Amino acid sequence: MAELIEPIERLADMFRRLDGVGRKSAVRYAFCVLNFTETEAAEFAEAILAVKNDLTLCKCCQNISSDSICPVCSSSSRNRATVCVVEDPRAVIAIEGTGHYNGLYHVLHGAISPMKGVSPEDLKIKELLSRLGDGEVSEVILATNPTVEGEATAMYLSKLISPLGVKVSRIANGVPIGGDLEYADNVTLRRAIEGRYTL
Amino acid sequence: MAELIEPIERLADMFRRLDGVGRKSAVRYAFCVLNFTETEAAEFAEAILAVKNDLTLCKCCQNISSDSICPVCSSSSRNRATVCVVEDPRAVIAIEGTGHYNGLYHVLHGAISPMKGVSPEDLKIKELLSRLGDGEVSEVILATNPTVEGEATAMYLSKLISPLGVKVSRIANGVPIGGDLEYADNVTLRRAIEGRYTL
Repeated sequence: MAELIEPIERLADMFRRLDGVGRKSAVRYAFCVLNFTETEAAEFAEAILAVKNDLTLCKCCQNISSDSICPVCSSSSRNRATVCVVEDPRAVIAIEGTGHYNGLYHVLHGAISPMKGVSPEDLKIKELLSRLGDGEVSEVILATNPTVEGEATAMYLSKLISPLGVKVSRIANGVPIGGDLEYADNVTLRRAIEGRYTL
Repeated sequence: MAELIEPIERLADMFRRLDGVGRKSAVRYAFCVLNFTETEAAEFAEAILAVKNDLTLCKCCQNISSDSICPVCSSSSRNRATVCVVEDPRAVIAIEGTGHYNGLYHVLHGAISPMKGVSPEDLKIKELLSRLGDGEVSEVILATNPTVEGEATAMYLSKLISPLGVKVSRIANGVPIGGDLEYADNVTLRRAIEGRYTL
């Protein structure tokens, strides 16, 4: 692709830092911004800064929050005996989206990955253990992603938490609803058979 | 999808205004920005504002430019007798990318589209005609997109320019290089056959 003029090139470079955005998309986005009104561009710039400046981590669950304690942790209607451990804030949104979980969360902000240089100390594990100390929590649901890193993190946490006398569970693996057995990978299918339940 | 906290929601809304970005991608991008360093976020915001504030339209070809006359128009090595008319600045980049065009450009900033409410007065057609007045230009290549709007715009311009004694040409339609005849649509294939050349 031919060279772009500098301001477009610079903005495209910024867009490329977003997950899953390649050069062509980044350039397209930069030209879109060019067609924004000045007000829109100012709003966009402001929104980017706001995400960094106006958000903090909830002191309890470590989820991103506008307040020092997030709405879930401060809610009186949630079941405080169950804590669902997830890798990132997006997982909280996904689980809240089901409308079927009424416990609390704990956001690790990553998963253990020697390949990426992420060790247990880089995650919010110390904060999780300190929440389990007072006996209020009776079950920890490990809802890290079903990837190598997520499984390893779940294993690691399980070994840390079990001795504390807290029940530890892991979300089920299986064939996703609406999926087709033909296209399920071997490991998923094996887990689906192993995890079969009686009707 | 569950509700997001306000700053993330607001940033995702801005990302959604970019071409081809849906809700899921917009939310993913917003979370990416959350993981930016403060410096990166500031750079991103600044880059957005710079695209709006530091760019102008070249007085000659109407392409976006940092200067009042763009590098192509001010170059002494370009063939000033040929003007290639395109819909937007991205087409200029695409054609420059071929390395096989040495003439000048004219950017219309759109195509005639009654459906979208774009009439000839909304495009840089007046500016194009005024460039053709002094007799320096001997050929106008109409390189608007091969879409209904682009074809209509080319037809419209052709009727305006031909009476001025300037040669008017249209870029060729045909099967794209690397394409497969099996997957070419009927119109493209018909044009490819009509436009066949003797070897």
